[in-house]
Amino acid sequence: MKTFGIAILGCGTVGSGVAKILLDMGSVLSERSARPIELRKIVDLSPKKSSEKNNIPLDLFCGGGKDLTPDEASGYISEIISDKDVDLVVETIGGTGDYLFSVILDAMKAKKHVVTANKAMLAERGSAIYQTAQENGVTLGYEASVCGAVPIIKAIREGFTGDEVQEISGIMNGTSNYILSKMELEGTDFKSALKMAQKAGYAEADPTLDISGGDAGHKLAILIRLAFGKEIEYKNLRKEGIQDIEREDIELANEMDCSIKLICYARKVEGRIAASVKPMMVKRNNLLSKVHGATNCVEVINKYSGRHYFMGAGAGGPETASSIVADIVFTARYGTVVDNSTPLRQLELVDADQFEFPYNITFSTADRPGVTGLVTTAIGAQKINIDTVSHNRHNRKEAVFSVATMPCTMQQIKDAVATIRKDSPELLTEEPKAIPILQ
Amino acid sequence: MKTFGIAILGCGTVGSGVAKILLDMGSVLSERSARPIELRKIVDLSPKKSSEKNNIPLDLFCGGGKDLTPDEASGYISEIISDKDVDLVVETIGGTGDYLFSVILDAMKAKKHVVTANKAMLAERGSAIYQTAQENGVTLGYEASVCGAVPIIKAIREGFTGDEVQEISGIMNGTSNYILSKMELEGTDFKSALKMAQKAGYAEADPTLDISGGDAGHKLAILIRLAFGKEIEYKNLRKEGIQDIEREDIELANEMDCSIKLICYARKVEGRIAASVKPMMVKRNNLLSKVHGATNCVEVINKYSGRHYFMGAGAGGPETASSIVADIVFTARYGTVVDNSTPLRQLELVDADQFEFPYNITFSTADRPGVTGLVTTAIGAQKINIDTVSHNRHNRKEAVFSVATMPCTMQQIKDAVATIRKDSPELLTEEPKAIPILQ
Repeated sequence: MKTFGIAILGCGTVGSGVAKILLDMGSVLSERSARPIELRKIVDLSPKKSSEKNNIPLDLFCGGGKDLTPDEASGYISEIISDKDVDLVVETIGGTGDYLFSVILDAMKAKKHVVTANKAMLAERGSAIYQTAQENGVTLGYEASVCGAVPIIKAIREGFTGDEVQEISGIMNGTSNYILSKMELEGTDFKSALKMAQKAGYAEADPTLDISGGDAGHKLAILIRLAFGKEIEYKNLRKEGIQDIEREDIELANEMDCSIKLICYARKVEGRIAASVKPMMVKRNNLLSKVHGATNCVEVINKYSGRHYFMGAGAGGPETASSIVADIVFTARYGTVVDNSTPLRQLELVDADQFEFPYNITFSTADRPGVTGLVTTAIGAQKINIDTVSHNRHNRKEAVFSVATMPCTMQQIKDAVATIRKDSPELLTEEPKAIPILQ
Repeated sequence: MKTFGIAILGCGTVGSGVAKILLDMGSVLSERSARPIELRKIVDLSPKKSSEKNNIPLDLFCGGGKDLTPDEASGYISEIISDKDVDLVVETIGGTGDYLFSVILDAMKAKKHVVTANKAMLAERGSAIYQTAQENGVTLGYEASVCGAVPIIKAIREGFTGDEVQEISGIMNGTSNYILSKMELEGTDFKSALKMAQKAGYAEADPTLDISGGDAGHKLAILIRLAFGKEIEYKNLRKEGIQDIEREDIELANEMDCSIKLICYARKVEGRIAASVKPMMVKRNNLLSKVHGATNCVEVINKYSGRHYFMGAGAGGPETASSIVADIVFTARYGTVVDNSTPLRQLELVDADQFEFPYNITFSTADRPGVTGLVTTAIGAQKINIDTVSHNRHNRKEAVFSVATMPCTMQQIKDAVATIRKDSPELLTEEPKAIPILQ
């Protein structure tokens, strides 16, 4: 069978990992694909570094190994797109820019399969990309875009085609989880934990996308499309990060036998998708509470087969590269891969806050008799059932106590707090913190 | 595209689950397959029960819903095998008998795809079945045969084709894990826990295959073939069960921050596959130690992407059925599915005991000064490094103490014990118990 030719655009950590696996495992990969697989060309602005790091022959780089200007690189990319011997393009440049967007579309229009780890591009501008792949009968491989090495795309797209996904909850950002783990297990404060994450190479110099829930949101958006057939507007997805989590919150969670985790959550409820990225208190009997460090873990609950967990390395060069290579082998073997999980549906995306969760609400109040009664009465008046009330601290000046509720909506809680404010304007010394509990 | 016709042979718990999903999700499954999927025929000796339980129309059953004699059923099966409108046969009869074996081969020779949950058949007589599938260009789908709903076959066969599996450790028998969990978490003894498992419907009236490691061994044999390309003789796989685990062992494991689990283990070592099914002490920082009840969990360690865990329902009608339906949809969509993980290799299967593990060895001895020195000296003389020594009990009559070693082989331990026996014939009051530690 004809050799399956591959080009890599962008040879950084992940791209060079792909090149390394293709070169190291070439003959086995060809066996697995039932046809020869060959890495034909790499485009990168500064080839020498990745060549040295991963032993990639310089002559595989367009330009023979010399540094390229952006214009030269674009020229070579255009050549690759019209090269009859390239069957599949690996996009490991990253970002959501117009140029890259058009490169992906042009490659597909030239009947090249495209494999990418670019979660931001797929989440923010994916619609046209998915559509172009379909129109041109080529594969869009994106296993690497969600949770690195964890084969969660394959599980949902193919493993669960005999079932119906009902709910997804996952730890999908390694940096945030590393920080929360440090805070929980070693008592570190947020700022120091963030610095440790940067030192360990998990967090970027500008960690905003990671700790704000943005990166996790990209991944959740991709999974929602796949699992529920709903292409969401990324900007409409509610994303909260971990910036406001304090050690006190984590200690309080611990007292309630919970860990605080940044949870990507999506559930199908009566024709709507309730989704959000936000910190949740995860009960210790849920495996997600036990996932520490930069590891990713996704929980999927299905109609027939119940609860599943998928856990593994969420990032890293070789780890992410292995997912890209799996997409390459599969495409070489089976031809075009179609998203056969769930065809697109008309479903409304709503903030998960609009749906019922059990909540933990922490109140900071003046410490005086009658406060508990006043607060719990206001909560009861909103038809919220209370599970437990526990005082964390009271010293005659200030009291901190938390109320764990049975399932209710965020709006009910807001209404209860408004009542407390109205009836006793001086009582609350801080804005109450309500955090959903994941069981 | 032509309708994809399905026949189900054997409509018990799993078979009727398949029928139910095919009927309930028919139109979605056809969308996912990009062609109409239709359940055409079911053969079962007593249709009424499964018809009633899962609302399966009686006219789908060969014979119109009346009970069949074995001869009548065979006749209908022969008709199905020569039926041009049946593209895929679901085998949910079970067992390893000659008749069923020939039915599977005949269906494939008649160019029918076959999907099965029959781990015993594949592990014990699979070689001819895999080969016949390949020769006839048909799919052999067997996702349901290993760990029920957990898509571990797909992960290894396709998810990890860009990588190299180095090690597999898994909890693959729900009954054994249910029993061990009861013993660990509720202090139940083995016999009572087994009775509870039978009452809860996890264990058969004759639970031998489950608690002896035989069922787990079937699954491990299938995964070894897929992950390492080694078709083993099932009878050559070392299988130990949980029959000899006592509460005392579990308490001792607990003191060492471990749980005892029945572990399916396989590792590639220099051209050999070291494999066994046996109870191991799993360190609590390994997720496998936290898997309780009838849940299954498989840990896979890969060269590039490191450590993965897959966890979910290991058995159950709808759960296992969902895996079968996923294989059906995939085959309907992509045509023949080839085992593209690793082509078969010449590799030697060896008992994992021949390779090095850290061990915990429990000694029961007379309680007198000098015993610790004598035992540890004998261990040291076999070049085994000792990690910890701890006394569990000593009362001037008898001492029970355990030695945790650094990695060594079972043979070294046997030699050390032989030395102790030779030098101090009266010292050991029981045969020492050595159990490998999984980290």
